[in-house]
Amino acid sequence: MKHFLDKDFLLATETSKLLYHDYAKKMPVIDYHCHLPPQEIAENINFNNLTHAWLYGDHYKWRAMRTNGVNEKFITGNGSDREKFEQWAATVPYTLRNPLYHWTHLELQRYFNIDTILNRHSAKKVYDEANALLASKEFSTRGLLKKMNVQIVCTTDDPVDDLRFHKQVSDEGFSVKIFPAFRPDKAMAVANVNAFNAYVNKLATVADTEISDIRTYLDALKKRHDFFAAMGCRVSDHGLEKVQADEFTMMDIKTIFLELRAGRQISEEDQRKFQSAMLLFFAEWDWEKGWVQQYHLGALRNNNKRLLAQLGPDTGWDSIGDFPQAEALARFLTRLDENNKLAKTIIYNLNPADNEVMATMIGNYNDGSVAGKIQWGSGWWFLDQKDGMTKQINALSNMSLLSRFVGMITDSRSFLSYPRHEYFRRILCNIFGEEIESGELPNDMAWTGKIIQDICFNNAKEYFHFL
Amino acid sequence: MKHFLDKDFLLATETSKLLYHDYAKKMPVIDYHCHLPPQEIAENINFNNLTHAWLYGDHYKWRAMRTNGVNEKFITGNGSDREKFEQWAATVPYTLRNPLYHWTHLELQRYFNIDTILNRHSAKKVYDEANALLASKEFSTRGLLKKMNVQIVCTTDDPVDDLRFHKQVSDEGFSVKIFPAFRPDKAMAVANVNAFNAYVNKLATVADTEISDIRTYLDALKKRHDFFAAMGCRVSDHGLEKVQADEFTMMDIKTIFLELRAGRQISEEDQRKFQSAMLLFFAEWDWEKGWVQQYHLGALRNNNKRLLAQLGPDTGWDSIGDFPQAEALARFLTRLDENNKLAKTIIYNLNPADNEVMATMIGNYNDGSVAGKIQWGSGWWFLDQKDGMTKQINALSNMSLLSRFVGMITDSRSFLSYPRHEYFRRILCNIFGEEIESGELPNDMAWTGKIIQDICFNNAKEYFHFL
Amino acid sequence: MKHFLDKDFLLATETSKLLYHDYAKKMPVIDYHCHLPPQEIAENINFNNLTHAWLYGDHYKWRAMRTNGVNEKFITGNGSDREKFEQWAATVPYTLRNPLYHWTHLELQRYFNIDTILNRHSAKKVYDEANALLASKEFSTRGLLKKMNVQIVCTTDDPVDDLRFHKQVSDEGFSVKIFPAFRPDKAMAVANVNAFNAYVNKLATVADTEISDIRTYLDALKKRHDFFAAMGCRVSDHGLEKVQADEFTMMDIKTIFLELRAGRQISEEDQRKFQSAMLLFFAEWDWEKGWVQQYHLGALRNNNKRLLAQLGPDTGWDSIGDFPQAEALARFLTRLDENNKLAKTIIYNLNPADNEVMATMIGNYNDGSVAGKIQWGSGWWFLDQKDGMTKQINALSNMSLLSRFVGMITDSRSFLSYPRHEYFRRILCNIFGEEIESGELPNDMAWTGKIIQDICFNNAKEYFHFL
Repeated sequence: MKHFLDKDFLLATETSKLLYHDYAKKMPVIDYHCHLPPQEIAENINFNNLTHAWLYGDHYKWRAMRTNGVNEKFITGNGSDREKFEQWAATVPYTLRNPLYHWTHLELQRYFNIDTILNRHSAKKVYDEANALLASKEFSTRGLLKKMNVQIVCTTDDPVDDLRFHKQVSDEGFSVKIFPAFRPDKAMAVANVNAFNAYVNKLATVADTEISDIRTYLDALKKRHDFFAAMGCRVSDHGLEKVQADEFTMMDIKTIFLELRAGRQISEEDQRKFQSAMLLFFAEWDWEKGWVQQYHLGALRNNNKRLLAQLGPDTGWDSIGDFPQAEALARFLTRLDENNKLAKTIIYNLNPADNEVMATMIGNYNDGSVAGKIQWGSGWWFLDQKDGMTKQINALSNMSLLSRFVGMITDSRSFLSYPRHEYFRRILCNIFGEEIESGELPNDMAWTGKIIQDICFNNAKEYFHFL
Repeated sequence: MKHFLDKDFLLATETSKLLYHDYAKKMPVIDYHCHLPPQEIAENINFNNLTHAWLYGDHYKWRAMRTNGVNEKFITGNGSDREKFEQWAATVPYTLRNPLYHWTHLELQRYFNIDTILNRHSAKKVYDEANALLASKEFSTRGLLKKMNVQIVCTTDDPVDDLRFHKQVSDEGFSVKIFPAFRPDKAMAVANVNAFNAYVNKLATVADTEISDIRTYLDALKKRHDFFAAMGCRVSDHGLEKVQADEFTMMDIKTIFLELRAGRQISEEDQRKFQSAMLLFFAEWDWEKGWVQQYHLGALRNNNKRLLAQLGPDTGWDSIGDFPQAEALARFLTRLDENNKLAKTIIYNLNPADNEVMATMIGNYNDGSVAGKIQWGSGWWFLDQKDGMTKQINALSNMSLLSRFVGMITDSRSFLSYPRHEYFRRILCNIFGEEIESGELPNDMAWTGKIIQDICFNNAKEYFHFL
Repeated sequence: MKHFLDKDFLLATETSKLLYHDYAKKMPVIDYHCHLPPQEIAENINFNNLTHAWLYGDHYKWRAMRTNGVNEKFITGNGSDREKFEQWAATVPYTLRNPLYHWTHLELQRYFNIDTILNRHSAKKVYDEANALLASKEFSTRGLLKKMNVQIVCTTDDPVDDLRFHKQVSDEGFSVKIFPAFRPDKAMAVANVNAFNAYVNKLATVADTEISDIRTYLDALKKRHDFFAAMGCRVSDHGLEKVQADEFTMMDIKTIFLELRAGRQISEEDQRKFQSAMLLFFAEWDWEKGWVQQYHLGALRNNNKRLLAQLGPDTGWDSIGDFPQAEALARFLTRLDENNKLAKTIIYNLNPADNEVMATMIGNYNDGSVAGKIQWGSGWWFLDQKDGMTKQINALSNMSLLSRFVGMITDSRSFLSYPRHEYFRRILCNIFGEEIESGELPNDMAWTGKIIQDICFNNAKEYFHFL
């Protein structure tokens, strides 16, 4: 019987252990996609307590608590931080087999050196111990990143963001590089015409320009793209149900934009046309600058209207959609590739039923120009657990080259999520280790170790060309 | 080498064995969804022979026999019961790795204490031994239920059913509670206008009321809903390709109903509107009464028209569909939730490609009001085997709380299917046992045992509020 | 630690080893679907070198090389054969966990008795050794087939093919039977009207008839169908995104054909109608002759237009589609079955998310007339690896009868692909072996061995009725 979460956690064979401890563990982290708040890094804050660090903003935990029958008062409501922590602690034993159970205890161990099982009985002790540490300098946001051997972080930022916090961090010479990522979802969100116009107005101000038509709109966005680049940005990102790749003319887009600016609701067909066009424009800029573009596909968002109205987006009302993905995605990538304007690209799918579509789609556009030019991203959001990662690793292995994979990201809002990289690495090493021991792979530790280090770090280093 | 189907069947580790034998095995069964014929319970019949008990009405076995090249004469035709049994016995060895192979031998062991492998050679001996037992009092339908430690059974009943058999069983004070479930599929089946009108007429008679418009139609159905409740019913059920959640007005539905009653075929669009409306009405009644509503989604039914015409529905011509499920399901649940009228709900999917859609959909509506309020149902029909159950348990674990799961059902027409609960429990215990031994879960037998007992029995007990 | 690719490769238990070595290994191969070039068999050529044998035409390897950053010059371009081999050899270590890694080394062992790991260092030695052997008589195309114990090969041929090479091989009395398969994809490809008309004209010439309308078109095709039958053909094949089963009248099809012959582009709706009709005609002829019809469903082809324009189809720009399959497929099979004209049928899906749809669809049409009449084909193309085969074997086991499966095919353009049959057999034996040792199957080696031999050879022998 192996002890829970010991040093060989998830490592079933001796070879797996060697691969992890001798090769993977030491590699630094490049977290090229996450949702850390730049302000909290700039201000180098300390969290008030473990509730603040863990439970503010973590809709994974909120969903678990709600499913466990916890009242919203103790989740996002006016319960005290201690009460909220107690409710979370009481929920943890009910999360057995959910990744939250592993993450929770891994985070307690790695950040706080606490190896107690969290439950209603241990709650007070854990809370007090962790809070004491959280108050120390070493546990400031910057301290937490250094503690986890993070080398580069890419946050997720709107084009209208002034990136002042990125600048502050950079100016202060923080050893961990904090880069922005260009995520223009709102610049294509034309279902709500009022929200869109407010956004365009804000953009005009930030870009210090007038926006009177599609041309000046694109100019303003391009200006922000240039500014992001100057700030070290090398990646863009898009969150979409599916890629839109309808037929359109530039005249269509011109007209649609004017309609929108006149405050008129546009048809769903015109919405798709507009998005089809904008995705191409952004993609061309990404290509011109040698950026990596990311597409997060397949979430069905904002489903529970009652609670959405109370709590807003990103509070736990999203789930996995079943949209057809393949044809439009191929059409979109082909349009770019035909003009030789296809940037390095990472595609993420939320529905694992699409895994093999993604694993084979990338091969259509890998043309030998860059090793692993088109990537299929790591298990994302609901798939960010042992099963999800394993399935992604296996499908990628079977249908493409795992060896060229740029690897794991946290995709997290929390500074305590970095052990997810360790989690991924253990799973990866275990897969290789088991197959070496079963004779499915040769017992070549040097080469296998190199491949593992590439996936953990070197491939991303090579791929993104961060400063 | 482990012996086939020994006492530790499916239990690979010592911890798995402890969890099953010390915790799971003793729990009674709540079979909250099945298709047992109430009349056979009321009349407490004995089966004529093993063909009667096993092969009348079991389309799983029929499909296997047909695939094995057995002539329909010996399946549903005029072959003798002994001949049919011989053909089934000769087919069994060809079902290796199909759940029928496990179920067949598990049922022989548990009910008849026969541990012979069934094949053409052992057929006579097995048939004669089983038949002798089936003639005994202990092997009446009620005897079989008691033998399997069943505490509660929910059958599946049409609103027009008079439930006289449920009443008889209840009046006679049978120790196993037999409750009806309200399944109004025919009340929404408007593709065939003649069949629908015949149904409405029958409903009018049973409900002792006139049905002249949508209002009186709904009143009559509601009367039946009330009657079912008075008979102890606490669950409804719907069998659908997909949930319909189109836009409609009450005026639309009123008009559509009159069209139908005038004998006019209605368009597919109007069929969807009508079903969208009916599903909401039923759901509101379920919510008012605190019932649990079940949705069985994704079957593609009645495919083989030639043999359907000969043998009728539910004789083995159904398969798994690939309908998009997510958007309409979210729209439907949101409509109910927005009005605070969302009852406790169990969603079952037939296509395992939809597993993760379902596992995450339920989280959108779990609002903390009831632990595990919205459930994703156990592996169903074609998924009712080790792989299907394991995938459902894993996806539920990864994306929700397995600990709050209301567990297994037989979904069967046969009194000999209760070992499927044992089968499920062994799989469940083995999953936990293996992860405890590999260090992925803590070695806390008391807590793990409690969770397992909850999933096997306590959660369902708590959830349904049966009398 | 097991040695890589030793004699017990993929066989994890003693029982697995016994099943493979004592039962599976000795069985001959019936390769009832592949893309071997008949001319190369007729001419009994020797390959110039290992690049010729391995890398000309193998888009699996090409995709891997492109993903690895190899310039097209060394893939399909004007690099020398030695240079291309060096690039491939340098890529192989990056294919760890891809089936190419297993296949490459299995092929080196089985054909060339080379058990070196291929990489840039061993490239020269391997190339020279293999080339020396390839020059010998034993390594001619016919020699390679005999070496692998192949008994029957079905190539894939267009109706306009004169089958002269099949005739030559047959006339010369080659011990391996080489039969054609009737694949009329171009006879339904009406999206490009010019290409279609060129095809029709060619058909008219080959069939020595005038084609003036749909009737004479069908007559000409039927004449070819008859000719193929006379040449020993017993299988047809269709490559489709999805089966089309729209409503049509014979008058529609007549008109559409005349439109096409007038050189007019037809609508997408009419294209679907035409294909719906043609699929039925072909299927009826297959039924009349007792052939087996195959449907390969779900590829999204020719995605990368830029490189497609340079290199043509089947050069590595295809991926997995996500088309809905179930309803049209059921409609199509039902139309044939209703008229009692449903031939033996094998359905292959490319998207593994459709596995369970396929595994259950076949059961709708298995009517007891022929054991395993409707088959779900082996893991195909991108699914042709351990995971893909395992998933197919498991879903088929769970939802149908694995015991009646007609088993593996190479689906390959290469004479060096025959170890894929060995690969499949090892996986199959291991699955049975593991379940016997874990007590999930009885320890009955004779019966299990028989089932395995049936799947490897006997079932196909029985099913196809080759001459």
